[in-house]
Amino acid sequence: MGFHVDSEAGRLRRVILHRPDLELKRLTPSNKDALLFDDVLWVRRARQEHDGFADVLRDRGVTVHLFGDLLTETLDIPAARNRVLDRVFDEKEYGPLATDHLRAAFETMGPAELTEALVGGMTKREFLERHPEPTSVRFHVMELDDFLLHPLPNHLFTRDTSAWIYDGVSINAMRWPARQRETVHFEAIYLHHPLFHADRAGPFHTWSEGQHDYPSTIEGGDVLVIGNGAVLIGMSERTTPQAVEMLAHKLFAAGSAQTIVALDMPKRRALMHLDTVMTMIDGDTFTQYAGLGMLRSYTIEPGVDGRELKVTDHPPEHMHRAIAAALGLSEIRVLTATQDVHAAEREQWDDGCNVLAVEPGVVIAYERNSTTNTHLRKQGIEVIEIRGSELGRGRGGPRCMSCPVEREAVAA
Amino acid sequence: MGFHVDSEAGRLRRVILHRPDLELKRLTPSNKDALLFDDVLWVRRARQEHDGFADVLRDRGVTVHLFGDLLTETLDIPAARNRVLDRVFDEKEYGPLATDHLRAAFETMGPAELTEALVGGMTKREFLERHPEPTSVRFHVMELDDFLLHPLPNHLFTRDTSAWIYDGVSINAMRWPARQRETVHFEAIYLHHPLFHADRAGPFHTWSEGQHDYPSTIEGGDVLVIGNGAVLIGMSERTTPQAVEMLAHKLFAAGSAQTIVALDMPKRRALMHLDTVMTMIDGDTFTQYAGLGMLRSYTIEPGVDGRELKVTDHPPEHMHRAIAAALGLSEIRVLTATQDVHAAEREQWDDGCNVLAVEPGVVIAYERNSTTNTHLRKQGIEVIEIRGSELGRGRGGPRCMSCPVEREAVAA
Amino acid sequence: MGFHVDSEAGRLRRVILHRPDLELKRLTPSNKDALLFDDVLWVRRARQEHDGFADVLRDRGVTVHLFGDLLTETLDIPAARNRVLDRVFDEKEYGPLATDHLRAAFETMGPAELTEALVGGMTKREFLERHPEPTSVRFHVMELDDFLLHPLPNHLFTRDTSAWIYDGVSINAMRWPARQRETVHFEAIYLHHPLFHADRAGPFHTWSEGQHDYPSTIEGGDVLVIGNGAVLIGMSERTTPQAVEMLAHKLFAAGSAQTIVALDMPKRRALMHLDTVMTMIDGDTFTQYAGLGMLRSYTIEPGVDGRELKVTDHPPEHMHRAIAAALGLSEIRVLTATQDVHAAEREQWDDGCNVLAVEPGVVIAYERNSTTNTHLRKQGIEVIEIRGSELGRGRGGPRCMSCPVEREAVAA
Amino acid sequence: MGFHVDSEAGRLRRVILHRPDLELKRLTPSNKDALLFDDVLWVRRARQEHDGFADVLRDRGVTVHLFGDLLTETLDIPAARNRVLDRVFDEKEYGPLATDHLRAAFETMGPAELTEALVGGMTKREFLERHPEPTSVRFHVMELDDFLLHPLPNHLFTRDTSAWIYDGVSINAMRWPARQRETVHFEAIYLHHPLFHADRAGPFHTWSEGQHDYPSTIEGGDVLVIGNGAVLIGMSERTTPQAVEMLAHKLFAAGSAQTIVALDMPKRRALMHLDTVMTMIDGDTFTQYAGLGMLRSYTIEPGVDGRELKVTDHPPEHMHRAIAAALGLSEIRVLTATQDVHAAEREQWDDGCNVLAVEPGVVIAYERNSTTNTHLRKQGIEVIEIRGSELGRGRGGPRCMSCPVEREAVAA
Repeated sequence: MGFHVDSEAGRLRRVILHRPDLELKRLTPSNKDALLFDDVLWVRRARQEHDGFADVLRDRGVTVHLFGDLLTETLDIPAARNRVLDRVFDEKEYGPLATDHLRAAFETMGPAELTEALVGGMTKREFLERHPEPTSVRFHVMELDDFLLHPLPNHLFTRDTSAWIYDGVSINAMRWPARQRETVHFEAIYLHHPLFHADRAGPFHTWSEGQHDYPSTIEGGDVLVIGNGAVLIGMSERTTPQAVEMLAHKLFAAGSAQTIVALDMPKRRALMHLDTVMTMIDGDTFTQYAGLGMLRSYTIEPGVDGRELKVTDHPPEHMHRAIAAALGLSEIRVLTATQDVHAAEREQWDDGCNVLAVEPGVVIAYERNSTTNTHLRKQGIEVIEIRGSELGRGRGGPRCMSCPVEREAVAA
Repeated sequence: MGFHVDSEAGRLRRVILHRPDLELKRLTPSNKDALLFDDVLWVRRARQEHDGFADVLRDRGVTVHLFGDLLTETLDIPAARNRVLDRVFDEKEYGPLATDHLRAAFETMGPAELTEALVGGMTKREFLERHPEPTSVRFHVMELDDFLLHPLPNHLFTRDTSAWIYDGVSINAMRWPARQRETVHFEAIYLHHPLFHADRAGPFHTWSEGQHDYPSTIEGGDVLVIGNGAVLIGMSERTTPQAVEMLAHKLFAAGSAQTIVALDMPKRRALMHLDTVMTMIDGDTFTQYAGLGMLRSYTIEPGVDGRELKVTDHPPEHMHRAIAAALGLSEIRVLTATQDVHAAEREQWDDGCNVLAVEPGVVIAYERNSTTNTHLRKQGIEVIEIRGSELGRGRGGPRCMSCPVEREAVAA
Repeated sequence: MGFHVDSEAGRLRRVILHRPDLELKRLTPSNKDALLFDDVLWVRRARQEHDGFADVLRDRGVTVHLFGDLLTETLDIPAARNRVLDRVFDEKEYGPLATDHLRAAFETMGPAELTEALVGGMTKREFLERHPEPTSVRFHVMELDDFLLHPLPNHLFTRDTSAWIYDGVSINAMRWPARQRETVHFEAIYLHHPLFHADRAGPFHTWSEGQHDYPSTIEGGDVLVIGNGAVLIGMSERTTPQAVEMLAHKLFAAGSAQTIVALDMPKRRALMHLDTVMTMIDGDTFTQYAGLGMLRSYTIEPGVDGRELKVTDHPPEHMHRAIAAALGLSEIRVLTATQDVHAAEREQWDDGCNVLAVEPGVVIAYERNSTTNTHLRKQGIEVIEIRGSELGRGRGGPRCMSCPVEREAVAA
Repeated sequence: MGFHVDSEAGRLRRVILHRPDLELKRLTPSNKDALLFDDVLWVRRARQEHDGFADVLRDRGVTVHLFGDLLTETLDIPAARNRVLDRVFDEKEYGPLATDHLRAAFETMGPAELTEALVGGMTKREFLERHPEPTSVRFHVMELDDFLLHPLPNHLFTRDTSAWIYDGVSINAMRWPARQRETVHFEAIYLHHPLFHADRAGPFHTWSEGQHDYPSTIEGGDVLVIGNGAVLIGMSERTTPQAVEMLAHKLFAAGSAQTIVALDMPKRRALMHLDTVMTMIDGDTFTQYAGLGMLRSYTIEPGVDGRELKVTDHPPEHMHRAIAAALGLSEIRVLTATQDVHAAEREQWDDGCNVLAVEPGVVIAYERNSTTNTHLRKQGIEVIEIRGSELGRGRGGPRCMSCPVEREAVAA
């Protein structure tokens, strides 16, 4: 049996996290918006908080792989390294006069150093401390503290860049430029790292073609593998309907899934991904943000001839019914803490709904969302709290910061 | 000897702080910008952090008054209560049909309840839970969760609303509507609370006329009482040159000060007050943000005839010289940590420069600004670190959160 | 019989316009937003277009007074001049060191020059070309091309600053700082100019206290004198419910009106005033923007005891019914051109609804709104088209640019 | 002799313009920013103004081709039509369920109808008026008035999408999504339209690979063919240094040019292209916006080995000297009208500098920029004024609205 993710809330076996490092130190008040963060982080503390998160997972028997380690090990393989550098050092980005020069300088780096540079970025000043300057207009016009290679602070959110769906993985075309280089890294890892060789990971499908799919973008935070051969997908600011259709074709053709329920979400940053407002915590149970309301939904199923799909539209009031039907249930259970609209908006902002189940009915949550956590406990959910004063400033909670690669189905 | 503040870095004796409460719970992603905050806070943790700050001050022998207590005790005095309610319930704000009705409802509250409502605000829904609805268009058009009385989360920054300058206090006209009601509270406290009666506080001047001075605004974060009869003032987004002139007239007429050095600051939110980029930590020593650069400055002194003032313009490169001259020194010492521009910008954002001296050479700082703190220590400054993961989200550090009312001069 | 405005669509007798001049030349891409304009204007052409507008009015027998002439004649009267200069040269704005100096310089100007400076504004450079520099920090910190006195380009929209309602005028507290100095000018004119002496204008009421009423703001673009003792008011971004209540008290106390219908408008710049989306063109007929939808409304009538008012709330679907009831009619006629949503939004933007009736069923409109104009003509309305390629860039049409001071009722 | 553009100010022989049509009617206050316009236009009047512009050119002996005609004629050629439809109806944009369905519907259109749809865009409602609805989530989630195919109002600015440089044309990768589909149209025209067949147009180079070059973007408004084998290019918000390097390689390899001078422009929308602040009006004479200041510049020349280029950096104060050197002159003549900073900013906004030379010393300009035009006349330039009250709202003048395909060198 290879790697596979058969549910949102079954026993979690294996996960990829990313430990905060240089890339988060790069955030400043001036660049944070372009880098999709709402505030700068104190990285030393954020790393401690993240270590606490990883420890909780390990305590629960989950195998934790760190993305930085995976990438470093991958970049030690010449073919993988070439693949990544080919993609990063593109003449259309760096110009004919600097591209080869820059790439040659990066080729001299060891795997760890290269990982740090690719993820943490590099300024012109840092480059010039070790390498000569190319004769290049593209390079000359930069200021010394401009980024020659911009940092990738959103690698913290390993959920989004790749998403395992049943017996395959979708390596995603990302919506915003600040994240598009992340995809290259995951492609190299899945293709070259020994952990994902067939003898270890088993055979698995790839449901996508990476950034090549752009503008048909999809991000893992919008994808919930709800079980019973069903997938729940939020069509958000970052996940497009065309990507949902493409994914449906591939999942159905492989027989890996039989139903997709797609939700028509508001296209706003505050609700950037479905899992910021709704997550699954047991075989029939979801958390949901009070301010989300009900959404129009679409059930997609295989058509009669294999090529065509069957699409059924549902009005907003049938949203929960459509999800239940995909699960083969008569109804689902939706937990929403009772609180005033201001408090509810605060906890959504602080990822109150963005919990990560480690087994049915047991979730990891930020301690700061006390109203939501108390509510879940009263409903019989076990809530394991982690600290997130710093981590939470990127608007992502435990689910956002984890990429499950092995998770069981919820037992019936 | 009454209350007086004779320096920025002499022994601190007495200070007003504000313990976070309901008003900060009101912050949401939607309203935070209008309320001048960059992020929402986890108030329970913020309160713990603030308690830690107060404890450090008490440990150093500083008497700490909590603003909430002062206001509650003040509102127990009928004249003070009337003064405040007269100002809050203005027909031009609430209309002729609702004003008396609303005020009557507030008059029934006890002092503690009234303090909570005035500082924490009140929604229409909360009002209607206890009081009948007035027949008023102004009231009818509001949504149930709209604020009938908006909260005052910036009371946390007691530094700004009133500022002691030598033997008097400036109760300030505030720049933005979100803070203007704070002034009413401090006026009532200084006028009516027993702590400020002449027998206790000694006679003291009042350098201003509160919000009545608007648009001649000044905020305490821009005012540094640097000693030697001198005051250093940042003319910022919130502090106007006309207010500096008015203050000069009053200080000079009373003989309380002899020199004002006014700095022409960039008018940007990131540099909202002078003390976010520059504070004084000993009799001749300042911290300064690396990215501030040098500013045009103006020395203001008494003119020959008492009415006129003498104004001397200095080019940017003479900024430090002008400050030194006001202090009667040949030069000042300016401490700026060496770090790359991105890191420096981060620490300024996190109030790296916004330290509070408790005696010469001993300052309280947020622990998160480790580069700046290490630099200060290497220069012989004692740095007492406090936690501020939550508190710092309002863009204010230890100096912003404190209003000294008694502080000695730095001994020569 | 004195001045009075008894309807929106009865025969128009007398109006105040403002001919574009220096103040509009001041608009630049950098300052236009702060000055509430969406684009800069070619003033020479705008003036030609405006002359065309005035000519059309004169051709229809309307007496046209130009605001600039009225202000110049007013400033020739010492008491009026003092009144205006007292208000403009406020120490809280200019500081104690410059205020007297500046005022003295302005006192030397003749009436025409003073009008140009007050309306067109003055830069520091222009001031220094003729006057010595004061010793003042407030003055020194200004750049040479900064405005010492900012221009008032919105004087173009004479509708807003003062509004005649039956036998009186409301001289309004304006919402935004860019327009607040306009009010001072109209106060001086109504109080001092011979045209408004009782022997000429007859006795008339004043329904307001000028900028002193702030923040209880109201602007004439939101006020429709619909006849039958009724007034229709939009509560918009700029007109507050408390101002509506205050106006109701005064109108009812004087017996000048018996009903106010207040509409709860969206608070958006695009719909800045009611007359940008709805105007009256005959005794029972209105134009209305297709995208406005129906609004919650409130009927305000005198209460039983004189002090209290009677307020009746109406749900959105009863908006037209509430207006009809105030007019004593069983229904009103609302003309909305059928066009796609994009085209409708364009014509609203270009003031398609902002027509000025000169007599029942005869309106002045911008030629560019051809769809709306054609629709009105098909409904039997006579449409007189004027050019407005430049004028329209301020988002105001013929109604916005006119302040009727004498208009008859619509004959029954 | 084929098509070629050998200068900015030599006799103009042949030009492509685009007559305003449906695509400009699509602009609304809501969508104009995304479509890169500052205001909506009255299209009927804009078309009259544009006709006036075309007439002036014809009067001067210039052959005028209308883009709409060229595209219609091109779309009558099956290969060209397929090329365009292949690019527009991409599964990554429309999804696997709708793409073939939509393309099939467009294939039924005649050339004129297809041109209108491709340039003017089409809403979902308009599509459904004539065609059945596909079973597609991508299609279902759209609102009826959403654009299925967004309009291309910037086709008005034919200057940018393709730019003739000496004996070849650069068909450009455009910076913003709102313009990227324009490139497909010009590629089809240059490749398939008989006008550009070798027997008519002569052999010509293609200096680029269309949108495929993205993110190495360049736009024609930044490209000035200044003569003497030199090209002046602004590196702006829209034109990148890497594109300049790529162009240099190709021009030098073909021997078509020997020098490029690249200017490091501020990256701001107001200065979106070099020709909004600087144009050439005679063999040694330029207009320049007063507020532009001097810019860092780079001279690029062929290197010794053919592959490498020689790059020489110049400090800002040498900008004019670098341009003169490229022209083989000792100095250039730069005309900047003396006016206050506010007026200069206004005329830059209104395209005061964006004139189109029809022969040396004879330019077409908007009439509204009277200060600039008068200044040019005083310097001996003949200025032909055209109306542009509507046209100018897109922030583009006569140079922006024209794509010369045949222009002589300026005689020595």
